[in-house]
Amino acid sequence: MSILAIDFGGTRVRAGWFTPTLEVLAREETLSRVDEPIDRVLQRIVDLAAGVVPAGATIEGIGISAPSPQSYTGYIRNAAVVPHWENVPLAQIVSDAFDGVTVYMENDGNLAALAEYHMGAAQGANPALYMTISTGIGGGVVIDGHLFTGRNGLAFEPGHIKYLGPDGKVHSLEDFASGRALGRIASEKLAASSEPSVLRDLPLVTGKDVGQAAREGDALALGIIEDAGWWLGLGLINVLQMYNPEVVVIGGSVSSLGELILKPARKVIQQYIIDPIYYHDDIIQPARLGDDVCLIGAASYARDAVYG
Amino acid sequence: MSILAIDFGGTRVRAGWFTPTLEVLAREETLSRVDEPIDRVLQRIVDLAAGVVPAGATIEGIGISAPSPQSYTGYIRNAAVVPHWENVPLAQIVSDAFDGVTVYMENDGNLAALAEYHMGAAQGANPALYMTISTGIGGGVVIDGHLFTGRNGLAFEPGHIKYLGPDGKVHSLEDFASGRALGRIASEKLAASSEPSVLRDLPLVTGKDVGQAAREGDALALGIIEDAGWWLGLGLINVLQMYNPEVVVIGGSVSSLGELILKPARKVIQQYIIDPIYYHDDIIQPARLGDDVCLIGAASYARDAVYG
Repeated sequence: MSILAIDFGGTRVRAGWFTPTLEVLAREETLSRVDEPIDRVLQRIVDLAAGVVPAGATIEGIGISAPSPQSYTGYIRNAAVVPHWENVPLAQIVSDAFDGVTVYMENDGNLAALAEYHMGAAQGANPALYMTISTGIGGGVVIDGHLFTGRNGLAFEPGHIKYLGPDGKVHSLEDFASGRALGRIASEKLAASSEPSVLRDLPLVTGKDVGQAAREGDALALGIIEDAGWWLGLGLINVLQMYNPEVVVIGGSVSSLGELILKPARKVIQQYIIDPIYYHDDIIQPARLGDDVCLIGAASYARDAVYG
Repeated sequence: MSILAIDFGGTRVRAGWFTPTLEVLAREETLSRVDEPIDRVLQRIVDLAAGVVPAGATIEGIGISAPSPQSYTGYIRNAAVVPHWENVPLAQIVSDAFDGVTVYMENDGNLAALAEYHMGAAQGANPALYMTISTGIGGGVVIDGHLFTGRNGLAFEPGHIKYLGPDGKVHSLEDFASGRALGRIASEKLAASSEPSVLRDLPLVTGKDVGQAAREGDALALGIIEDAGWWLGLGLINVLQMYNPEVVVIGGSVSSLGELILKPARKVIQQYIIDPIYYHDDIIQPARLGDDVCLIGAASYARDAVYG
């Protein structure tokens, strides 16, 4: 009576063997190597998964976390990390490899939300929202304990909230507050001024570099993080007023900056939110689950479908 | 086996006697006269409602549409149309007046959404969203056939989506695209330029005046409506990407401008939406129910609770 879970990401593949209470009995991971031929990558996923299933065990259901927008269809397409994968039927391939066991596939942001709801920082919260602020910004919504994904599995996309920018053009929240944005904005600021900064010594500035410099007290980097926090706050206001959530869990690499980016965000929320009932500081919670968040999400998604 | 429904608005009170299939058997309305003492207004509501109930009939449930943000609590407070009503227990008062029959109270935007879902332009749609663009901008969300209102009954508030404006300050969508905004923007434009316009003859320009002038081809008014449509489109993108709805019903007085305001909105959506799956022209639907939309919503809300 156990669940096989797979997390297929652009960098790593993880597989786990879970009990119905989401205890992990076996776990393996390897590099995805998505630059290799698609068939070899798919075989690597299947082999890794087979390795966590005990000999003779019955698989009750298989959960897969995938990086594709409409992963619930079972296909990988329009995935930023494997843009050349066109309609690859990952769910069917994995099901076939395991004697036709039913596969429940969803995208990584949605399953991270479900994992934080079941085992992390949003346990029992309703609605429970999850936002990942990493290279890009994504997320998921859990209502009444179940994923809410809208008509076509596309809800919600907090990173693509559209704004008029200070330049008079339309931008996405991602353009102001993602890891990618931090690196780009730093490069622009370094080119446009002679303000001293440890970032000047770097040949190419990434979001990670900006975060590290900010932690070390670099004034230019701190200013960039504060601006990003301002936009994040504006985004969070809109998320709060759209869903009136009990908890918003913030995960992803940029969120590891903690209050450096959250403090200016909280200030903006308090300044502009229409009704203070929407917000108190505990509504914004750092993610509790680490690298296995999507693996746990995949396991809980299949578990809910099989035993729920 | 019937439902009593009441729609208490800032201008009018309506009452109806409905079958479980939402057929209306009797209907009355009167002016709310909210400037009168609260007790007299409350008595007027009860008297109007009593007038639609046939002698000797059994009331199975009572639905009330109220203009208060957290109407589900049964209290009227923080209501823009009756700001001086502080924690008035409308639900209890009506229940007491009808031998303790259970009252199901919700706010007008939410119930309009439910009405359009059951009987109007969003029949069977999932998710079904409703936006009213009138003096202000409000709305409601129906998921799986039931109202979704979030943790504190406050979801969703499309009129309060926050934007950085062209002036570099933070504004709400209402500041750009509501009826109130149309009147204000027109007054500002008239003062700032000498552009000819029929609106110049008016002592005070309202949103209604701007709409009328636009329908008659007034260039200044048309420009204002087009700008409002641009912002409405940006707001709709964010609504679409947050909920991935099957239908968004647009009601309210400003929406009667039809494609004058919707055409520029549709153009912005098509230009900036992250994925064309979110949007095709039929997703945006004009409201089908007229002045009784909230009354029908109140009836269906009580009906769902009693017979659902």
